[in-house]
Amino acid sequence: MAIPPDLAHIHHAELLTTKPDESLRFFVDVLGMEVESQEAGSVYLRGWGDYGRYSLKLSEAASTGIAHLAIRAWSQEALDRVVRAIDATGRGQGWIDGDHGHGPAYRFTDPDGHLFELLYEADRYEPPSGLAPSLKNQPQRYVGRGAAVKRLDHVNLLAADVRAVREFAVDVLGYRLYERVELDDGTETGAWMSLSVMAHELIYTQDHHRANGRLHHLAFWVDTREECLRAADIFLDEGVTIEAAPSKHAIAQGFFLYAYEPAGNRIEVTTGGRLVYDPDEPTVVWTQAERAKGQAWGVKTIESFHTYGTPPVEPP
Amino acid sequence: MAIPPDLAHIHHAELLTTKPDESLRFFVDVLGMEVESQEAGSVYLRGWGDYGRYSLKLSEAASTGIAHLAIRAWSQEALDRVVRAIDATGRGQGWIDGDHGHGPAYRFTDPDGHLFELLYEADRYEPPSGLAPSLKNQPQRYVGRGAAVKRLDHVNLLAADVRAVREFAVDVLGYRLYERVELDDGTETGAWMSLSVMAHELIYTQDHHRANGRLHHLAFWVDTREECLRAADIFLDEGVTIEAAPSKHAIAQGFFLYAYEPAGNRIEVTTGGRLVYDPDEPTVVWTQAERAKGQAWGVKTIESFHTYGTPPVEPP
Amino acid sequence: MAIPPDLAHIHHAELLTTKPDESLRFFVDVLGMEVESQEAGSVYLRGWGDYGRYSLKLSEAASTGIAHLAIRAWSQEALDRVVRAIDATGRGQGWIDGDHGHGPAYRFTDPDGHLFELLYEADRYEPPSGLAPSLKNQPQRYVGRGAAVKRLDHVNLLAADVRAVREFAVDVLGYRLYERVELDDGTETGAWMSLSVMAHELIYTQDHHRANGRLHHLAFWVDTREECLRAADIFLDEGVTIEAAPSKHAIAQGFFLYAYEPAGNRIEVTTGGRLVYDPDEPTVVWTQAERAKGQAWGVKTIESFHTYGTPPVEPP
Amino acid sequence: MAIPPDLAHIHHAELLTTKPDESLRFFVDVLGMEVESQEAGSVYLRGWGDYGRYSLKLSEAASTGIAHLAIRAWSQEALDRVVRAIDATGRGQGWIDGDHGHGPAYRFTDPDGHLFELLYEADRYEPPSGLAPSLKNQPQRYVGRGAAVKRLDHVNLLAADVRAVREFAVDVLGYRLYERVELDDGTETGAWMSLSVMAHELIYTQDHHRANGRLHHLAFWVDTREECLRAADIFLDEGVTIEAAPSKHAIAQGFFLYAYEPAGNRIEVTTGGRLVYDPDEPTVVWTQAERAKGQAWGVKTIESFHTYGTPPVEPP
Repeated sequence: MAIPPDLAHIHHAELLTTKPDESLRFFVDVLGMEVESQEAGSVYLRGWGDYGRYSLKLSEAASTGIAHLAIRAWSQEALDRVVRAIDATGRGQGWIDGDHGHGPAYRFTDPDGHLFELLYEADRYEPPSGLAPSLKNQPQRYVGRGAAVKRLDHVNLLAADVRAVREFAVDVLGYRLYERVELDDGTETGAWMSLSVMAHELIYTQDHHRANGRLHHLAFWVDTREECLRAADIFLDEGVTIEAAPSKHAIAQGFFLYAYEPAGNRIEVTTGGRLVYDPDEPTVVWTQAERAKGQAWGVKTIESFHTYGTPPVEPP
Repeated sequence: MAIPPDLAHIHHAELLTTKPDESLRFFVDVLGMEVESQEAGSVYLRGWGDYGRYSLKLSEAASTGIAHLAIRAWSQEALDRVVRAIDATGRGQGWIDGDHGHGPAYRFTDPDGHLFELLYEADRYEPPSGLAPSLKNQPQRYVGRGAAVKRLDHVNLLAADVRAVREFAVDVLGYRLYERVELDDGTETGAWMSLSVMAHELIYTQDHHRANGRLHHLAFWVDTREECLRAADIFLDEGVTIEAAPSKHAIAQGFFLYAYEPAGNRIEVTTGGRLVYDPDEPTVVWTQAERAKGQAWGVKTIESFHTYGTPPVEPP
Repeated sequence: MAIPPDLAHIHHAELLTTKPDESLRFFVDVLGMEVESQEAGSVYLRGWGDYGRYSLKLSEAASTGIAHLAIRAWSQEALDRVVRAIDATGRGQGWIDGDHGHGPAYRFTDPDGHLFELLYEADRYEPPSGLAPSLKNQPQRYVGRGAAVKRLDHVNLLAADVRAVREFAVDVLGYRLYERVELDDGTETGAWMSLSVMAHELIYTQDHHRANGRLHHLAFWVDTREECLRAADIFLDEGVTIEAAPSKHAIAQGFFLYAYEPAGNRIEVTTGGRLVYDPDEPTVVWTQAERAKGQAWGVKTIESFHTYGTPPVEPP
Repeated sequence: MAIPPDLAHIHHAELLTTKPDESLRFFVDVLGMEVESQEAGSVYLRGWGDYGRYSLKLSEAASTGIAHLAIRAWSQEALDRVVRAIDATGRGQGWIDGDHGHGPAYRFTDPDGHLFELLYEADRYEPPSGLAPSLKNQPQRYVGRGAAVKRLDHVNLLAADVRAVREFAVDVLGYRLYERVELDDGTETGAWMSLSVMAHELIYTQDHHRANGRLHHLAFWVDTREECLRAADIFLDEGVTIEAAPSKHAIAQGFFLYAYEPAGNRIEVTTGGRLVYDPDEPTVVWTQAERAKGQAWGVKTIESFHTYGTPPVEPP
């Protein structure tokens, strides 16, 4: 029986960088995000369409990758239900008092070791006068700087055992599983999950190196495919390394552009993707042969897309 | 406390036409929908992205307007909860056995007299071989005929008392109220509601003639603004009456194109619109002065948009 | 017999502003042009796709409007031929030594009194290192700031007697006349002319006030309609006055967005437009009744579009 | 000294097919062209924006490839000038009486053996009532079927010796050379030429097999990049073989989608491309190293793009 998830959406991600100044310049000048606030070692960044104060916490660290992923629940009651379910798995770490812009958060790790926080209480963004929008149903003025990303859209984590993390996300966190990849030998190498009608919000794909806790990419939303194409022009002239030029995914049918921010974390500029309105949507299972066809229009996926993640690891 | 709605989405609408052949040609050749099946007096039509068998039932009648609106629930249990709530209001009419493509449905009227059906059991579309898609996460092949609308997106009903129907939709049906218009004298003249992150799925606006049970428009989705612009070119050369050329709404920020199908019902080709991820999203209330500014980029709304609906009525 | 024009394209326009700082900020921050150089009272500005050093000279003045329009010839020989033709009309004013970025120029006025300069020798833009492009067939890096206009596309002048200036442009300057408007009483109220396959490069429309030497608008090119839509969002949040929201012209079929720069000159962001490959293209003549239908998709042209120009004048 | 070319544009191409019924269905149903007329063995096809009666003559033959390319001159005098220049090279074959839709044509071959025809007298298309457009500056109604290509845009021929054919095209035919590729060993492997401000109209690239008279591709224009993306979706669901998914060329900066029509001829759906307004535009010369970087956004060009042409040949 289908039930709506108790969790609402990914509230923010904390990304680690070894080149804080260069990464910050990338997110502000090239992706077009705003600095909402700063503290020692971390900068809080937002897209012009994020309703919360920020969706990206960028923190200086000795290596790259993702520090934690924070998911907001529909209510305190809904949050408590999920916390009880996590507790039952033994993966819970307990509550923290909160962080900039949000209240108490419950910490746990997924079976691959990625750190998550669940929260309910969160501030809405109040723009300073220079960033106040003309339309009151918009959280912030559209500045149009760089790729002008609107908000954090989805997060793709790597996992040594995709099936295990996918089952945790579905059974314990309540994610809906829309698509997955299963190889001929039965290995599950990818799972696309969501809390809403959007095609994907949390993705797990196989870690080529069987390492744990790594990041594949953070994806930032733009409203149109033309903005993805425009972002590619901006990346080109900014000297940003484009890993995969704009095209359309077969899975989820999102439109993509992949690049590396200066410290090496993979960043996607994305839009589109199918909408899932069926409460009983059957999971689409892609086979090895189907994946070999490449992306929607036949583009072969570049090898690094299947092998590279952050933090980098030595091959086994 | 925010809770996810028990209802999932508008499954289909039944539209009435006095010119069945011409209307059918419009929906098939100009909007690009497919005939899924036909029966005496009615044709079942679908967009290429509708997961169900159809989203539009087009029925011959003595006048135009909407015959009923069918909403699908997340589960039978969810449906039963909503039915109990409706029963308590005295607006329920009881169950019917179902119709083409769906199971038992519960009938009721909103306070303005529009007929609704709630259902849970519904068939998924199985394309015939000629319409099988290349990508298995797509319900039907993309044919690209005419405006090539993807699916029924939202429905805008007229009501003599918007506040009354809005309160019913929110309090009884569980809709989330994202935006509304309140005039200086306190009259509520519009309410934009949704069951998902999409900016609107059910809209009520004021019936200029204080008539009951009328339709403002049915809106069909395309994935890009460019497809709205292209649809305008198609309408122009097809001789379809364009009421409002493509532009961007201030409310909900959707991109629009309004036209009349041959029998006179207003049809929108739409895309975009803001996404609402905040479980506690405060309702945006637009004032009379703000509405007087026109659409997002200053386009003044054409008078007929505020006065015309179907079936047509004589002014009071 | 059709012959290719001796003139090649509009090289630059000199625009007058009573608010030099605010106008400059508009062209740089909002339209996204670059300052190529500055001198007392004037700033030379360029779009990222202008091959010459600049296409806009912005000069402080006691009033608004256009100071002069400079057209480049195919060669010195071609220029000399046109100069001889102008001389024969008695409208010539002789040669000047040149200006920043170009060589000797021949001055004349059209029959409505607008000042023109014809030139052949002109510098190609050499980008400083910070503005060097990645692709060597592009004159400058794509920065993507603001509306990010690519180049000056066309100029629309007002004239008390459109037929007279149009005949001068066609017969003396060699412009090709692609479209024009003729009212029922035989008055010519608009003429769309070009030196290339592009739908229009020089436009004359009727001055509502029968004043002389005034400007209707300067149009700057973007490559896509989506960029016009995006520019409207930027204008909205920048507080720029949008005169006409993005839509499609019937004449020439260009896509438009009209706004006022801070001093009051009308600026268009444009793309599209039909391409004219027929050497013997017959001029399309629009009637009064056809013009009354509004723009391509039925948008009624706002009154100010027909009455306002710069510098402003009192009604007769 | 730059002078405008005596030739105006490519009027039509005659394409050969071994599968006339399947090819015809492709051009009509998938590309969206109209059959203007038919005769034994040939069908004359047009895009909705072609001003002439047709731009593609599709002829049944024992093999694929291009039968001839017809170029229209600015005038009979201009045509005669070019004919005299061709005569002087000894490559002329004399006049034919004309063909469907055009008058006398002068035949010659380029140094690689491709057959050309030069003509001046040509009919303008007169649409039948069912195809009459709403806007009188458009030759035909926009039907919107399939990819809905607007007109033949450019032709890319293969040549064993690119430098020789390029020099002929520039020196004898008067083409303007905008870009070319020169390998480290001095071999010229590609030349992009035009008669107008458009980035390319006639392209020669190296025949991998050193064969003669072969075709690389015919390119059909659409007005927007979104239509290229949409065409890819149509191709995907039509089962058309996509050779290269939509992306942006480095050379000329055009947006592309390459596919094979049923008989194997390569077809491009294209838009964009830089505009060249400088009469003295210097030719951009791309080096071997620069070409190795792939397309504009880094997409590696698929091997077949460099090796395949029609008619097919055995490797040397």
